[in-house]
Amino acid sequence: METFEIKAFGTDSKTEALKELTIKRRVTTPKDVEIDILFCGVCHSDLHTARNDWGGSAYPVVPGHEIVGRVTKVGSEVSKFKVGDIAAIGCIVDSCQECASCKQDLEQYCIPGFTGTYNAKDKHLGGRTFGGYSEKIVVEEHFVLKVPENLDLAATAPLLCAGITTWSPLKHWNVTKDSKVAVVGLGGLGHMAIKLAKGLGAEVTLFSRSPEKEKDAKELGANEVIISTDSAQMKKVAGKFDLIIDTVPYVHDVNEYIPTLNINGTIVLVGYLGPLDPMLNTVPMIMGRKSVAGSVIGGIAETQELLDFCGEHNIVSDIEVIKMQDINEAYERMLKSDVRYRFVIDMASLKN
Amino acid sequence: METFEIKAFGTDSKTEALKELTIKRRVTTPKDVEIDILFCGVCHSDLHTARNDWGGSAYPVVPGHEIVGRVTKVGSEVSKFKVGDIAAIGCIVDSCQECASCKQDLEQYCIPGFTGTYNAKDKHLGGRTFGGYSEKIVVEEHFVLKVPENLDLAATAPLLCAGITTWSPLKHWNVTKDSKVAVVGLGGLGHMAIKLAKGLGAEVTLFSRSPEKEKDAKELGANEVIISTDSAQMKKVAGKFDLIIDTVPYVHDVNEYIPTLNINGTIVLVGYLGPLDPMLNTVPMIMGRKSVAGSVIGGIAETQELLDFCGEHNIVSDIEVIKMQDINEAYERMLKSDVRYRFVIDMASLKN
Repeated sequence: METFEIKAFGTDSKTEALKELTIKRRVTTPKDVEIDILFCGVCHSDLHTARNDWGGSAYPVVPGHEIVGRVTKVGSEVSKFKVGDIAAIGCIVDSCQECASCKQDLEQYCIPGFTGTYNAKDKHLGGRTFGGYSEKIVVEEHFVLKVPENLDLAATAPLLCAGITTWSPLKHWNVTKDSKVAVVGLGGLGHMAIKLAKGLGAEVTLFSRSPEKEKDAKELGANEVIISTDSAQMKKVAGKFDLIIDTVPYVHDVNEYIPTLNINGTIVLVGYLGPLDPMLNTVPMIMGRKSVAGSVIGGIAETQELLDFCGEHNIVSDIEVIKMQDINEAYERMLKSDVRYRFVIDMASLKN
Repeated sequence: METFEIKAFGTDSKTEALKELTIKRRVTTPKDVEIDILFCGVCHSDLHTARNDWGGSAYPVVPGHEIVGRVTKVGSEVSKFKVGDIAAIGCIVDSCQECASCKQDLEQYCIPGFTGTYNAKDKHLGGRTFGGYSEKIVVEEHFVLKVPENLDLAATAPLLCAGITTWSPLKHWNVTKDSKVAVVGLGGLGHMAIKLAKGLGAEVTLFSRSPEKEKDAKELGANEVIISTDSAQMKKVAGKFDLIIDTVPYVHDVNEYIPTLNINGTIVLVGYLGPLDPMLNTVPMIMGRKSVAGSVIGGIAETQELLDFCGEHNIVSDIEVIKMQDINEAYERMLKSDVRYRFVIDMASLKN
C-alpha cells in the first residue's frame, strides 16, 4: 500500500519521554479523507498508553484521539467532505460496520472490536495505528466528523473524547430538562458532563471532595456542589438524582453515592476501569431498584449529534493550549490534576 | 382499638421452634377486609426472620407473606371486595400512600418505608405485624388482591412473593417475546422467573451449577440450561442476554455472568442482600454499557397485574403442600434446597 512520511510526537518505550518521530500514513484510498491536524486534545489515556499503564502498548506509541483539522485530500468515493472543510476525528478510526452494534450506530461496542485511533491494529498498514500528535491523519469517511463553523477549533478538540464520553450516557439514560443529574469529579470529563447536562436543561450537582471547586463548578453551570465527605450534605441530597455520571479515574467507594439516587436511578461509571473496592453492597440497590452501569465513549452518529448540539448551544471545553514540545511537562501536570480542564496541543508547533 | 384473638404459629425467640400461639387482630375498620386464611406459602424470609438472621426481629414472630384466603368481613367503605370472595395478601400490608413512590404505585419503594406483612411496626395496634401463619388477617382494602377464579389456590400463594419478585423486573426491563432472558438459580424465585418469562414469550435460559436440573428446567419452560462452571458453555452464550434475573440468595460471583449480557443488558439481583464478593469489575460493564441492578418485590397494582396475567396464562407455582405443624421440618428441608419449589401450608391444619 502506498504511504507517505510525516512528523509525529511519540515514544519508543514506556520509560522514555515523548519526542519527535517520523511515521507513515497511507495515501488516501477512494473512501478516505486526509486531514491536516490543527489541534489535538490531551487525554489521560494518552499518558497511560505511552507509559503502558494498562499493558498492551506496542511501540512506538503516538497518542492523541481528540483531533480537529482541515481536509487536504479526499478519495474518489467521498461525498460528505471536500478539501478545505474543518473536520474532526475521535477515538474510533475503524470498526467492522457489519455487527449488530455497528448496524445500530454503536461502533464503540463493535463486537469484533473497534479500531482505536492509536495503539490499535491498523487494518490498512499492519502494525499499530498512530494518533493525533502528528501532522496529518488519513481516515475512512464514515469515521470523520463535521465541525460546526461557530465553534473555537482548539476548544472543540476535547469534545471528541471527554465530550462524547459524558454525552453518550446523558443521552442513553434520557436526560432532559426535567432530570436531576449529578457529576462525580471535576476534571476533563467532569467539566464537560456539567456543561452538557446543563445544556440539556437538567438540574446539575457536582459531587467533590474539594470545597474550593465550588466557584468553578458553578461557573461551568452546576446548580449546586455537594462535598461528598460531609455526611450532612450527603443526607440533604438523599434520593435526589435520576442519573449520576461518575468520572473519577481511580478506585473509589461507589457505595456512598447510591443513597443519593432516586428510585430507578443509575450511576454510570465512565472513568474507572477495575474492581469496585470497597465491595458494592446490593442492599440499597435492591431497596430502590437502583443500577450501577458502565459506558464508553460513543458512536459516530452520536458524536456528530454532540458536535451539532455544541454548535447550537455554543458549548466547548475549557482548555489550556500548549505546544507539542511541552507535552511531557503537560503529562506531569495532568497527573497532579493541574489543568483547567484540558490541555490542547496547537499542532502548528510540530511543523515549525 | 377493638381486637379479637386467633390461633397462629410462630416463635418467641430465635432459638425456639415454631409452635402454636394466640395473637390479636384488629376488628375491621371501615376500610378493612378480614380474610380467613386458606393457604400460606413458605418463603426463605420467613425462616430468616424467625431466626433473626438479618437482625431486627422482634418476638413473637409470626411469619408468612404469601397469603390466599376467603373474605369473611368487610368495612363499610370497602367497595372492591364482598364476603365470600377469594382474596390474597402479599408482602405489603400498609404504606404512606402519599410519597412519590406510592403515588406511582411503587409501594415497595415507599419513601418512609412500607409496612411488611410480618415483623414490621403495626400502625394500628402498635407492636409488630403478624403474618399468614394464622387463622385470619385484617388488611386495608388497598393492599388486598383479587385472585382469578381458575387458579389452584394453594399454588397461587407463592405468586405473592416469589412471583412478584421476578415479575416486577421482567416488566420494568420490558421483557417481550423478542427478549432473551436468563435466570440464575432454580429455587422458589428461579422457577417462577422461568415460568413468567416464558409466559411473556421470551427465550429463557437457566444458569445452573447442577446438570441434573436440566430436565426440570425444561419442563418449567426453559429453552436451554447452561452449566455456569463450564467455560465452553458460558462462551457459547457470550453477549446473548437482554436481562438476567439473579435469584441466588447467598454471596456469589456476579462477574461471571456479565460477559453473557448483550450490549445494554442488565443483570438484576433479587435474592442476595450484601456486599458483592468477589468485587465487581467495571471493565466489561463499561465496554458493553451493561448494568447491575437490584429490585425488591413489586407494587400493589403490579401484583394484581401479575395475578391477572397468571389467570390468563394459567401459571401457578410448583408446590408441596404441608400442614402447619410440619413447618419446622419444612424449614430444615428448605435450608437444604429440598423442595420443588415452594412449600405451601394448608391452613385448615391450624384449625383442627
